[in-house]
Amino acid sequence: MGRELKGIYQDKFQREIEIPIRVRYSETDQLGVVHDSNYFRYFEVARMEHFRSWGNPYGELERSNTLLVIIDMECKCRSPAYFHEILQVKAWIHKMTRFRIVHHYEITKNNKQIIATGKTVLASVSKEGLPIPLPDPLRNVWLRLRERKR
Amino acid sequence: MGRELKGIYQDKFQREIEIPIRVRYSETDQLGVVHDSNYFRYFEVARMEHFRSWGNPYGELERSNTLLVIIDMECKCRSPAYFHEILQVKAWIHKMTRFRIVHHYEITKNNKQIIATGKTVLASVSKEGLPIPLPDPLRNVWLRLRERKR
Amino acid sequence: MGRELKGIYQDKFQREIEIPIRVRYSETDQLGVVHDSNYFRYFEVARMEHFRSWGNPYGELERSNTLLVIIDMECKCRSPAYFHEILQVKAWIHKMTRFRIVHHYEITKNNKQIIATGKTVLASVSKEGLPIPLPDPLRNVWLRLRERKR
Amino acid sequence: MGRELKGIYQDKFQREIEIPIRVRYSETDQLGVVHDSNYFRYFEVARMEHFRSWGNPYGELERSNTLLVIIDMECKCRSPAYFHEILQVKAWIHKMTRFRIVHHYEITKNNKQIIATGKTVLASVSKEGLPIPLPDPLRNVWLRLRERKR
Repeated sequence: MGRELKGIYQDKFQREIEIPIRVRYSETDQLGVVHDSNYFRYFEVARMEHFRSWGNPYGELERSNTLLVIIDMECKCRSPAYFHEILQVKAWIHKMTRFRIVHHYEITKNNKQIIATGKTVLASVSKEGLPIPLPDPLRNVWLRLRERKR
Repeated sequence: MGRELKGIYQDKFQREIEIPIRVRYSETDQLGVVHDSNYFRYFEVARMEHFRSWGNPYGELERSNTLLVIIDMECKCRSPAYFHEILQVKAWIHKMTRFRIVHHYEITKNNKQIIATGKTVLASVSKEGLPIPLPDPLRNVWLRLRERKR
Repeated sequence: MGRELKGIYQDKFQREIEIPIRVRYSETDQLGVVHDSNYFRYFEVARMEHFRSWGNPYGELERSNTLLVIIDMECKCRSPAYFHEILQVKAWIHKMTRFRIVHHYEITKNNKQIIATGKTVLASVSKEGLPIPLPDPLRNVWLRLRERKR
Repeated sequence: MGRELKGIYQDKFQREIEIPIRVRYSETDQLGVVHDSNYFRYFEVARMEHFRSWGNPYGELERSNTLLVIIDMECKCRSPAYFHEILQVKAWIHKMTRFRIVHHYEITKNNKQIIATGKTVLASVSKEGLPIPLPDPLRNVWLRLRERKR
């Protein structure tokens, strides 16, 4: 996450992303619906895709000394999702502090019927597990996004 | 869930349960720790075990017209868990209303080091997805547990 | 799976399908690679997508009295796959008898580097678990595919 | 995996292990049975438990330069397993060559009704992915086990 990545962060980053995920058979349970724990896996897919859209695959962050670990996660399930349905999974950064990133999520189907909403809090830690500030390039994207919004 | 189950509920039920779960290799991720979504699976194992200890396997509830579906779930991750560690997963009923059960959870290792804490809210619904009151026997256990506590 | 579905099966069905699957973070293990059990989940996604391309979502088969259950599965892992790589998962019907369907699979990345190959055998059973012949429409597609090949 | 582990390997190791695994709700699919991919996760739990019974947690092997990676896996599913059933998962070493370990598995319930049987082949590779001979202590356990059998 050194200076060499800075260029990548200069434009075209978005605050949110929305991706389609088709429910897999293996993700259903005997109730005939998506097993709830999978919503966090869908959230993760969207979150990672979002980082990727910023030119910053999560893998690179990990290979540097910065780990983003989940310290808080929440999900409210509004209505069930079924095998082979296509869900729209939206993820966006709600807040970024020096040490944390708060994502919000919304899963819908069939033109905006809400399936689930959620939240995760990522903490920036070193490989040794100690808190370290988020890399500057990441912070800078956020600061610019906030300005743009105004 | 008719009258025939009532007898089973008459004694020996506890408000909480604690079970050991050994971390499986397949539950780790490339960070070398338990993938966070699995905590909800551990919570579920403890919750089901707790229902079972009441003489009321979850499967029976499902075979009746009562489904307990998750409408809210939360988890705070305090420190990581690793492959082949034995975790203690504690689940207890925090509250039961006519239509909902709120469970709380705590996962520890090594004599009380906290790994994660959590919460789920189950709603009682019919097979058609409509809210129905929780079965009386279940409610009665809860009411007696509350009395006992005083 | 009665006569009313016959029309759907008349053309455009292919013997094989190839779909891209991007490796999810939750699918890696502490070795830093895709956990092997996930290959069967990828195979399943491709198999289901293939049924779907025939106009016959697997869900419909299940809602009729015909279940396709796995009785045999194999996978040879040639080289590892990593988080965020895009894998090409190819599935094709190798053989169909009156009671069974044999699928073969091949997972590649980076223009044909082989990650894994596999096989599953599905048996056609009734909801009661007894063997029943595969629905005629499904058999007919297969017979026409075989002719076309010659 | 140096000399210091040798002592541990001197006795009490068994060729096979049998452990109980209770089916989790999250392991079922919408067919109402254990999703087939989970059998490989159960096999893995038994295999790891077996290594552990030899005084050689898999984690230690990994921390040394020796990785055991799956190159072949097979499973035959004979009859379904259901939520909350207790399965007996038996694993044993069928063969060990200089570079490979072949495990066989059998999952039963209710006093020997067979649910699934399986096989995995592990290859010994370095962290760089190159074949390296299995550590001597591991090989020696195997050689002694074979002698004992005669």
